[in-house]
Amino acid sequence: FRKKELKVDELYNQIINGDKSALSRGITLVENNNPKQQEKSAELLEKCLPHANRSIRIGITGVPGVGKSTFIEAFGGYLADKGKKVAVLAVDPTSTVSRGSILGDKTRMETLVNHKNAFIRPSPSGDSLGGVARKTRESIILCEAAGFDTLLIETVGVGQSETTVHSMTDFFLLLKLAGAGDELQGIKRGIMEMADAIVINKADAENKRPAERARSEFRRALHLYPEKENGWKPQVLLCSALHREGIEEVWELISSFEEKVKKNGFFEHNRQEQNKFWLLQTINEALKNRFYQHPEIKELLPKQLKAIERNETTPFEAAALLLEKYRNL
Amino acid sequence: FRKKELKVDELYNQIINGDKSALSRGITLVENNNPKQQEKSAELLEKCLPHANRSIRIGITGVPGVGKSTFIEAFGGYLADKGKKVAVLAVDPTSTVSRGSILGDKTRMETLVNHKNAFIRPSPSGDSLGGVARKTRESIILCEAAGFDTLLIETVGVGQSETTVHSMTDFFLLLKLAGAGDELQGIKRGIMEMADAIVINKADAENKRPAERARSEFRRALHLYPEKENGWKPQVLLCSALHREGIEEVWELISSFEEKVKKNGFFEHNRQEQNKFWLLQTINEALKNRFYQHPEIKELLPKQLKAIERNETTPFEAAALLLEKYRNL
Repeated sequence: FRKKELKVDELYNQIINGDKSALSRGITLVENNNPKQQEKSAELLEKCLPHANRSIRIGITGVPGVGKSTFIEAFGGYLADKGKKVAVLAVDPTSTVSRGSILGDKTRMETLVNHKNAFIRPSPSGDSLGGVARKTRESIILCEAAGFDTLLIETVGVGQSETTVHSMTDFFLLLKLAGAGDELQGIKRGIMEMADAIVINKADAENKRPAERARSEFRRALHLYPEKENGWKPQVLLCSALHREGIEEVWELISSFEEKVKKNGFFEHNRQEQNKFWLLQTINEALKNRFYQHPEIKELLPKQLKAIERNETTPFEAAALLLEKYRNL
Repeated sequence: FRKKELKVDELYNQIINGDKSALSRGITLVENNNPKQQEKSAELLEKCLPHANRSIRIGITGVPGVGKSTFIEAFGGYLADKGKKVAVLAVDPTSTVSRGSILGDKTRMETLVNHKNAFIRPSPSGDSLGGVARKTRESIILCEAAGFDTLLIETVGVGQSETTVHSMTDFFLLLKLAGAGDELQGIKRGIMEMADAIVINKADAENKRPAERARSEFRRALHLYPEKENGWKPQVLLCSALHREGIEEVWELISSFEEKVKKNGFFEHNRQEQNKFWLLQTINEALKNRFYQHPEIKELLPKQLKAIERNETTPFEAAALLLEKYRNL
C-alpha cells in the first residue's frame, strides 16, 4: 500500500515537471482497465486536475487521404517552433487506422515526433468508443498537467467519433480537399454544424483553383446555418500542409476565436457543459464495466447468449434473469 | 395483486385476438417508465412472446421530404388490401418530427389509418434513442402477437436512428429522391451498406429521367460494396408513391428477399444476432435506469451538476462520488 502511494506521487511529480516519458506512463496507466490500476489512475487524475485546463483543445477531423498527418505535422511544428507545448492525441475505436495515421507514416511525422515541445500519443485501444473517449479525456488532463497548452485531438471521422471529439474540444476544425469531387458531397450531416473552421488542404499547384471554388461553395453553405450561440461565424481557409502554406492563418483564426469566446464567456460555458456531459458518460461507462466485469456475469452472459442462439430464451427473459442475478450479488 | 394479474391477462387475451385498441393500450403500457407498470409490461411481453416472430420486419428510412408518409400510405395500403396485416411503427427520439411524419399530416395517411388491416403507432416519446429503441422492439412483439405479419418501421434518418432500425428489421429500405441534387451526395457513410433496397420515389412526370439516371448511379455505387454475407444483392427500384406506381415491385422484391434468406438460413441467423444485440441493449438501458431513477441519485445528481458548473468539482470526482454512493445503497 505504501509503495503504491509512492509510485503515483512520483509519477505525478514527474508529470507536472513536464517529463514526457512519465506522461506516457501516466497515459498507459489511465488506459489500463484493471481495477487496481484504475484506482491508481483515479488518484493520479485527482492530483493532476488542479494543474489542468490551461489550454486550448483543438479537434481535427477529415476523411482518410485528406492529409491529416501532414497537416498536424505542419501545424503542430509551427506551434512548437513558436514555443507552444503541443500534445497530439487521437480518438478512434478502430485503433489500427489512427495508429496508421499518427505514427505509422514515420517519414511524415518525424519532425514533430522529435520536437522538444511536442508530445504525440497514438489512439488508445478500446472496445467501445465510450471507453476510448474516457481514456482520451483523461489523457487530456494529464497532458495539460504536464504543461502542454495546445492540444490537437485527431479523429478519422468514422461513425460517431467526430461528435465525441467535438464534446471534448474548444475548437473544431474540419479538414477537406478540393478537386476530388469532395466539395460538399460526402459531408455527414451534423459535421458542418460542428465545424468552427473548414480548412481546405492541398491547395497548391493545379489544385489552387478548385480549392478556391470549394472555398466559395463552403462559405455559401455555411451561410445557411443559423449563427452559433457563442457568436462565432465559422470560417473557410485554404492551406497546403505539404508546402507549409496557410498554416499561420489557421492559428490566427483559432486565436481570434479563443479571444472572442473567452471575452463573451462561452469558452468557460462550453467547458462546463462538456464537463456535465463527461460526468454522465463516465457514470454510464462505469455502470457497464461493473456489470460486465463481474465474475458471475462473465460466466452467465455467454450461456444466455448461447441460449438465445438456440431459441431457448428471448432477449427480454435473458436480460431479466441476468439483471435479477446482478441485483442480488 | 389479484386485480393486476387479471388486467394483464385480459389485455393479453384481447391483444392475441387482434383487438387494435388493446394493442394500443399494451404499447402504452410498454412505453410507461414507471417501475410498477414496467413489471406489468414484462408480464405482458412474456405472455405475448410465444405468439410473436411470425412476420417480416421492414425498416424504412429517408431524409425528410423524400415522401416517407406517402410511400408508407401507398405501400401499407397495397399490402393491407392484399390481406396483409400491416403495423407501422416509428423510431425516433425526436418525437415531434416523426409524429409529424406519421400522424401529423392526416390528409396523406388517412386511408391507411382507417384500414381494417392496418395499425399505426406514432413514435414513442423518450429521452434517449436507447430508450425509444427498447420500446419499439417491445412494441414489435405486441404487434406480432396481435397478428400483424408485416411491420413497417420508419425512421427519419437523424443521427444513429438508422442503425437502430437496422438492428431490429429483416429488410432495410432506403427511400431516395432524384433530380434534387440528392443522388449519391448526402448519403451518410454506412447507410448504403445497410440498404437491401434503394427505392427512388417521386419518379414521375419530369422527374422520371433524373430518377432513371439516379438509378444507374446507385446501381454502380452498390456494385462497389462487397457481397453481403446473406448472399443478397441490394436492388434499386423506382416508384411514385403519389401515383401508386412501382409499389407492387417493391413488395415482390421484398418477397424474393424473404424467400432467399429463409432458404439459406440467414433470416433466422439475423434474428438471432439481433436478439443477442437486444439482450445487451436491454441490460445497458436497465443499468442506467436503475441508477438514474434511484431516489438518492435523483437528489444528488443535480447538485453535482451544479457543482460542476461552479467549478467546485470535476466530472471525474463527481462521478466517483455518485458511483460510490450508489454502490453502498
